[in-house]
Amino acid sequence: MRLLPAWLQHYRRADLRDDALAGTITAILLVPQALAYALLAGLPPEVGLYASVLPPLIYALMGSSRTLAVGPVAVAAVMVASALQQFADGDSARALAGALWLALLSGGFLLLFGFMRLGWLSYFVSHPVLSGFSTAAAITIIGTQIPALTGVNGDRQAAFFSFIIDITPRLNDTQLSVVAAAAATITLLLIGRFRLAGWLRAIGLSAPLATLATRMMPLVIVASALLISSHVDGARYVAVVGDIPQGLPPLSISFLWLDGWQGLIGSALLIAIIGYVESLSVARILAIRRRERINPDQELLALGATNMSAAIAGGMPVAGGFSRSMVNFDAGARTQLAAIITATWVALAAFALTDILAPLPKLVLAAIVVVAVTQLIDFKSLWRTWRYDRRDGLAQLGTLLGVLAFGIEPGLLLGMALAIGLYLQRTSDPHIAVIGQVSGSEHYRNIHRHSVTTWPALLLVRIDENIYFANAPAIERQLMDLIAQAAEAEHMVLVLSGVGNIDASGLEMLESLAQGLGDAGMTLHVAEIKGPVMDRLAGTALLNTLGNSHIHLSTQAAVDHLLGESQKSATN
Amino acid sequence: MRLLPAWLQHYRRADLRDDALAGTITAILLVPQALAYALLAGLPPEVGLYASVLPPLIYALMGSSRTLAVGPVAVAAVMVASALQQFADGDSARALAGALWLALLSGGFLLLFGFMRLGWLSYFVSHPVLSGFSTAAAITIIGTQIPALTGVNGDRQAAFFSFIIDITPRLNDTQLSVVAAAAATITLLLIGRFRLAGWLRAIGLSAPLATLATRMMPLVIVASALLISSHVDGARYVAVVGDIPQGLPPLSISFLWLDGWQGLIGSALLIAIIGYVESLSVARILAIRRRERINPDQELLALGATNMSAAIAGGMPVAGGFSRSMVNFDAGARTQLAAIITATWVALAAFALTDILAPLPKLVLAAIVVVAVTQLIDFKSLWRTWRYDRRDGLAQLGTLLGVLAFGIEPGLLLGMALAIGLYLQRTSDPHIAVIGQVSGSEHYRNIHRHSVTTWPALLLVRIDENIYFANAPAIERQLMDLIAQAAEAEHMVLVLSGVGNIDASGLEMLESLAQGLGDAGMTLHVAEIKGPVMDRLAGTALLNTLGNSHIHLSTQAAVDHLLGESQKSATN
Repeated sequence: MRLLPAWLQHYRRADLRDDALAGTITAILLVPQALAYALLAGLPPEVGLYASVLPPLIYALMGSSRTLAVGPVAVAAVMVASALQQFADGDSARALAGALWLALLSGGFLLLFGFMRLGWLSYFVSHPVLSGFSTAAAITIIGTQIPALTGVNGDRQAAFFSFIIDITPRLNDTQLSVVAAAAATITLLLIGRFRLAGWLRAIGLSAPLATLATRMMPLVIVASALLISSHVDGARYVAVVGDIPQGLPPLSISFLWLDGWQGLIGSALLIAIIGYVESLSVARILAIRRRERINPDQELLALGATNMSAAIAGGMPVAGGFSRSMVNFDAGARTQLAAIITATWVALAAFALTDILAPLPKLVLAAIVVVAVTQLIDFKSLWRTWRYDRRDGLAQLGTLLGVLAFGIEPGLLLGMALAIGLYLQRTSDPHIAVIGQVSGSEHYRNIHRHSVTTWPALLLVRIDENIYFANAPAIERQLMDLIAQAAEAEHMVLVLSGVGNIDASGLEMLESLAQGLGDAGMTLHVAEIKGPVMDRLAGTALLNTLGNSHIHLSTQAAVDHLLGESQKSATN
Repeated sequence: MRLLPAWLQHYRRADLRDDALAGTITAILLVPQALAYALLAGLPPEVGLYASVLPPLIYALMGSSRTLAVGPVAVAAVMVASALQQFADGDSARALAGALWLALLSGGFLLLFGFMRLGWLSYFVSHPVLSGFSTAAAITIIGTQIPALTGVNGDRQAAFFSFIIDITPRLNDTQLSVVAAAAATITLLLIGRFRLAGWLRAIGLSAPLATLATRMMPLVIVASALLISSHVDGARYVAVVGDIPQGLPPLSISFLWLDGWQGLIGSALLIAIIGYVESLSVARILAIRRRERINPDQELLALGATNMSAAIAGGMPVAGGFSRSMVNFDAGARTQLAAIITATWVALAAFALTDILAPLPKLVLAAIVVVAVTQLIDFKSLWRTWRYDRRDGLAQLGTLLGVLAFGIEPGLLLGMALAIGLYLQRTSDPHIAVIGQVSGSEHYRNIHRHSVTTWPALLLVRIDENIYFANAPAIERQLMDLIAQAAEAEHMVLVLSGVGNIDASGLEMLESLAQGLGDAGMTLHVAEIKGPVMDRLAGTALLNTLGNSHIHLSTQAAVDHLLGESQKSATN
């Protein structure tokens, strides 16, 4: 690994102004969000601040993305909450130590995967599953904010549906003052996000200035809420953030002395995978815009170290967040220096602002969470996926409903298993085409889709899938049926252009097929075996049975050979 | 479904003698084996007899194999033992009812799979996994017989390794009389199986007579053991079978009133799958020899009904056994009438022989089990598999060691997961070849393996795997690397002859690739899209972006088009 990150080695002074401005703007958005995500995770609000200082600094030194902003993110926060609910069972000291363990373990997993170059493991969270998961996680998160937004007491429940069933009857106790304040805050935040820039430009502000003002909206709302709350002693009416310890805690590993941390391993693995997948997607989206490359294995190492630093800095699991990174990117960040400046501001806030933040109503933070995660909800993608591919759609829908019905982790696992199971099911009865020659070419295609030339003595069959244990019996059955239908066929040519791999079960099936065809007086030929498959087959009983004269480079070569042979036998 | 089985509709009188003889010989072998497998399952010996009467009759009426012999089998028996160990915890009445539930549930699963045509689910037990599992199950079974063969007390343990660790220190208490008798029995059985026929022929017996005498060997051993044991009051020295209730029990469903049967569902599913896979393999091996066809879905229904009948007949889970079926087949069975005759003999034995069998030493039954399962042990296949395909070999070894280390069910599940995981891992970083024209043909092959013609402006790339979520990122990375190396390339042609399927994640990747190439001033073309893939792609953004002029039937067509185009632009 290099000693200095690439962005620092070639730092251009011209980028300094952009980075400083972007870092400052991001910090403004980040402080309230950090508090909110910590509360979402069921932790004291200051934990969100701690996780926003050291981790982004580590990422800035190790990560391969120039603009990914790392810190507490909503989905990881709700996964932490779900993991700690049973583990800590209301004991807040235990929850805090558990969160640090989760950060340490998920960081450890990521480092391990990085060293073992197992980045491909994360590919097994398919786009549809990730999309279904994000939508369901966002809905679950919004559910968890209902108590804070209504003043009703609600037990945390593992799953959204049971949470809703549990809380619905209690909504009679809704505190109107809380709901009104929450509704006002959400409305203002939504206006800030979707309308304000347009209005400001309509009254003549320049576009950059309008955008800047829009960005400041959450800050304005938080500041106003603080002013009002401290003026009227808001704590009498609504739940407030309360005292936050001043400053940053010293680096510490005292959390390591926690009983039963082993129970968090599974959750940590899931948090690591989801955090990594989310970070990598965001990093790649940003990299494409700037034509940069992301190194997936480097990202594993960087995010692993980042999470381990979050553990000893008293924080919580972190990842590259979508909204955080987009703000940073849109604000003009050029390099990770912006992230370093953000982290500095947050550290200053932890020293200077904690007293000021005490009277902040929690409902304001809840409103910020709700508005932030709303953009994760995407039902259109479900419809789009379904239309293109039923199996993908089923996996996405299964993940979505699984998370809502059974909770964050079981739903995610269900979705991943569903995606893999459906893929395997698809390959278990593959497409097999009888093919013929496209006239005027040496190209062979499906006789049912193209007008092609065929010969009664030749049965040309193309197998469109790897031949492996899960489909070898189905392929054998399909081939047997084709043979039974082709009464005049003397030779069967298997065209293996679509076969990238033949495993031991597939080999056995082909051997018994060659045997069976021989007994029935037909010969088996193969064509277009790919190099890697041929390498493996060399020296097997199958190739010895077939002999070199039955193995052809191309379908055309097989046809030429066999037609020549039958002409010869016709002449004799 | 037809009312009469095919073999009965067209029964030839000429087959009657063969069937009667084969049925009788099989019965002779079956009676002691049925007792032994019941003991192996941790059940009273007579349960093995009950399971050998009604179930084969049901299979004879419903099955699609003419010679498969159904009854208690060793692997299913040890799976029953493993499932009931925790469930019954030494309560023999509970174990008995549990065994009936296992038969009922596994029968129910098979019927359900049959009605839903889910026979392909069984394909997911690959040959290597099944082979590793059989070997490990046989070793485990031999382990469980050590107490009976040595007179040492041994706790049943879930897994072979812990069993061995547990029993080794106790082997000091070995009873020499038991070991001597067991060694003699095993030796005689092995001689009967491997040597006797040769010796008899050497002294002038005809081959059929010698084979018949060999078949009678277990009967001779059992009869001698009974004679000796009743003469010297064997129960004083060794454990004996003891009183067996006379006759067959009435059909009964009283076992249904069992608490906690739900705990057996998982085990029943595994027993169903393994029993089905074993039965189907045996049936197919026999069918190939007689050129008959096996209907996998019909087999599901038949074995389902067979197991449910075993439950109400007071038996245990049954399957088509390898040794049982081979004896039946070798003895000349033509149809399922032989199985009906066997079942009749076993029923008669249950009425007539139970008193006589009481003094039979259990060590004789243990010896029969050991000799029977020895033929399941196959390490050569492990080596063969490993040499052909490392991943298959790993799955086989993993199953073998998993069963020995963690027990029958966890080991099997581990093996299945390993096989699937390794297959997916293989597809997750697929082979991608840059191709060129084989001279004098329209065939295109890997530039590194064949001497081919290429054109600097054209980058022809063949992808040898479906494009799906688990490999889309790796394919993108490989393509990007190829593009970076091909500095002069103006057009990239993706040859999709090896792609049987593109899922939503794959589509997204291709869309972003088309976009990226466009930005870089290159054009993307595709060739040899298979029919089913094209159907799915129709109407997607990708095809709209590409346009018809960038989609080519064959690689040759793409090359002709692109070379024509560059000539035109060169002329202009």
